[in-house]
Amino acid sequence: MEFITGVKPTDTKEISDILAQETAGCVKMNGFIHTIRHMGEIAFVVLRKREGLVQCVYEEGVTEAGLKELKEGMTVEVEGILHEEERAPQGFEVRLTKIIILTSPKEGAILPLPISKWKMKTSLETKLNYRPISLRNIRERAIFKIQEGIIRGFRDFLYSQGFTEIRTPKIVAGNAEGGANVFKLEYFGSKAFLAQSPQFYKQTMVGVYDRVFEAAPVFRAEKHNTTRHLNEYTSMDFEMGYIDGFEDIMAMETQMLTFVFAFLKEQYAKELKLLEVTLPDTARIPAVRFDEAKVLVSEKYNRKIKNPYDLEPEEEVLIGKYFKEEYQSDFVFVTHYPSKKRPFYAMDDPTDPKFTLSFDLLFKGMEITTGGQRIHDYDAQVAKMMARGMNPEEFANFLMIHKHGMPPHGGLGIGLERLTMKLLDEQNVRETTMFPRDLSRLEP
Amino acid sequence: MEFITGVKPTDTKEISDILAQETAGCVKMNGFIHTIRHMGEIAFVVLRKREGLVQCVYEEGVTEAGLKELKEGMTVEVEGILHEEERAPQGFEVRLTKIIILTSPKEGAILPLPISKWKMKTSLETKLNYRPISLRNIRERAIFKIQEGIIRGFRDFLYSQGFTEIRTPKIVAGNAEGGANVFKLEYFGSKAFLAQSPQFYKQTMVGVYDRVFEAAPVFRAEKHNTTRHLNEYTSMDFEMGYIDGFEDIMAMETQMLTFVFAFLKEQYAKELKLLEVTLPDTARIPAVRFDEAKVLVSEKYNRKIKNPYDLEPEEEVLIGKYFKEEYQSDFVFVTHYPSKKRPFYAMDDPTDPKFTLSFDLLFKGMEITTGGQRIHDYDAQVAKMMARGMNPEEFANFLMIHKHGMPPHGGLGIGLERLTMKLLDEQNVRETTMFPRDLSRLEP
Repeated sequence: MEFITGVKPTDTKEISDILAQETAGCVKMNGFIHTIRHMGEIAFVVLRKREGLVQCVYEEGVTEAGLKELKEGMTVEVEGILHEEERAPQGFEVRLTKIIILTSPKEGAILPLPISKWKMKTSLETKLNYRPISLRNIRERAIFKIQEGIIRGFRDFLYSQGFTEIRTPKIVAGNAEGGANVFKLEYFGSKAFLAQSPQFYKQTMVGVYDRVFEAAPVFRAEKHNTTRHLNEYTSMDFEMGYIDGFEDIMAMETQMLTFVFAFLKEQYAKELKLLEVTLPDTARIPAVRFDEAKVLVSEKYNRKIKNPYDLEPEEEVLIGKYFKEEYQSDFVFVTHYPSKKRPFYAMDDPTDPKFTLSFDLLFKGMEITTGGQRIHDYDAQVAKMMARGMNPEEFANFLMIHKHGMPPHGGLGIGLERLTMKLLDEQNVRETTMFPRDLSRLEP
Repeated sequence: MEFITGVKPTDTKEISDILAQETAGCVKMNGFIHTIRHMGEIAFVVLRKREGLVQCVYEEGVTEAGLKELKEGMTVEVEGILHEEERAPQGFEVRLTKIIILTSPKEGAILPLPISKWKMKTSLETKLNYRPISLRNIRERAIFKIQEGIIRGFRDFLYSQGFTEIRTPKIVAGNAEGGANVFKLEYFGSKAFLAQSPQFYKQTMVGVYDRVFEAAPVFRAEKHNTTRHLNEYTSMDFEMGYIDGFEDIMAMETQMLTFVFAFLKEQYAKELKLLEVTLPDTARIPAVRFDEAKVLVSEKYNRKIKNPYDLEPEEEVLIGKYFKEEYQSDFVFVTHYPSKKRPFYAMDDPTDPKFTLSFDLLFKGMEITTGGQRIHDYDAQVAKMMARGMNPEEFANFLMIHKHGMPPHGGLGIGLERLTMKLLDEQNVRETTMFPRDLSRLEP
């Protein structure tokens, strides 16, 4: 009988193993051949490893292997002698003594993109068509390491604040956010939808754990083909009970963002440097009422207010610009959205029910968060449904929580890909989506 | 202009705040009224908070509030004097001076389940029908805290081993696992599917980061109505490059499980105790070939082998029993599954291509993991597709990675709900699924 125990020590090294010791002596490592640069007597064989690139030096007569046999896209295991080398990517190079080819790409295959170039200088369309390959570029893959850092920081912060992580179903019977932008599917003869948000479930789970979060895919069948819409994206949601008002939610988000950016600075410094990212300051984020924000930008930028109850994307951009210019802030909370523009579960402002106790967070002029206080009272929730022509009986499962008691609560949803996009100053949300889904793109 | 900074200090305390200080003096806290027990002169008002129950003592004349106004399901803010009290759930009680009602359930609403009972003693069907309420039971919610611990441990371990977290699309054009058990949806006039697994994408991302993982929902349109199948579940997947063989994947899983159980012991001791969970030993997990396992149980339990190329659920149970009896192990790896029963991306055993370099992990007689080495060579992958009557052109996006080079690699998928089910010795996977989806259940 064979027994499996833990991971066995390996004699192949990662970059961090080498940097943690003296860079001298023999070393064994594996990796992709990222590029080969012929320099006359010698050649640089650059290996791509998960932590970065490693410069290896091939020398005829010294290295046991034929240089002609090597090609980009192979994976290899190499042996060699470590040398300090300031000009190499990691501050060291490996003078190769041996190369073993592990795997080879298809005979004659030609790379569709110059992935070993620093900047690929190709269209977004081409990058997306060849996403499995374009992500092998060092800068492209750094984008999604930073995205990993954001989601890790989000979770770690919320755990520290007493939140519980939940998993809510993506195949649902009802349509939480209203509207027609919902994907339908056949479910064993019943009609089902893909969840537009975990809204009902996260409110439900506040009744169980007081504070909950989820970071998971959501689906919107929106027919927009813009630089900021996706049909599937990652929503980072949290919801919390026993709030004194929706300001508590904005405060939690502010502190979460501060934590996330500090976490990135500490854990993802390499990627931040690689992409030349400047982390924003979130020590204090201005908050302005929706109606006041409209007036402020209308006055400063001499722009007519067309619809007092809606915010156009251009107005969002100008509000962002205004608070950057006047308060040096990349972020601004816009509060008290009109009731008409918010879903039926949003709590109206008791001092003026035309508005809600809700907010959006704009980052560099783009909405990255929608949040607010929710109705907790059964009769109030039923009344708001009725006023909107909805049938409360269809929402019996959701209303179960109001019926049996809910604390004052609220929460928010953050678009992970949009937050990443604005942090990296990208112009299209597809740049910061691993495998985007849009009107015309279902593959790869 | 108002500015939002971080979370403001609050004067209401959580259980851990109180346990961290001396249990004396005044205290303010909020919570759900979980139950009220009348004891003559006094009454116990038990508050449900996220960390547990708190016994509060109501005394006529001392507490400013009418006891008759209070009812279960209300949320309240209370003030009182802390006293040590061994018999109380947390070792202290609060002698109430003041109660403020924050919110109330619907007038006259009657709880559908006795959620304040230690064990609700009700059918699974009823618990699921009233899931938003039944989860408020202390034992029910402890199940999903442990589940949170499993997924946290899974992630934390993999981060420590150099894995990158990925997010792959759930709306897909192709059908990775083959078969008919796939949900279809309309996607702007195109036919699309819900992902049965992140298989193609996780292999793709090995070409980018060497080691990747994802813990996310997957969808199976299986028409099974069993105690172990769900139509939507959480799959914990990892995939790793530069492996020497599929044993490396089993070793990584073994060490991950050891880490997860140690993490639970450290961070979720309260919930483990509450549910009387005994953590299994994973220091060494036996591994047995598929064909040998069949012979072993056939001989020991006097059972005829019906089909040498398939494993019936009953056989899985007996293999589990065998290794528990003979090796005192709750886990067993069954290796070298027949090629027929494995998907087209599985690598065949070069010494006997009727079998694959793959495995399942059984936990207490139930499959919780499927994994194995994958084909990395382009020609080999195309040949296996052709041998199965598949058209490689339909898989051009997947084959792109083989075409441009892949390291030797493999990985696995673990069903989170099943792992939780077996750990807690539950008899039905729906017990350990927050909001299960099955043939007849699409709500709540």
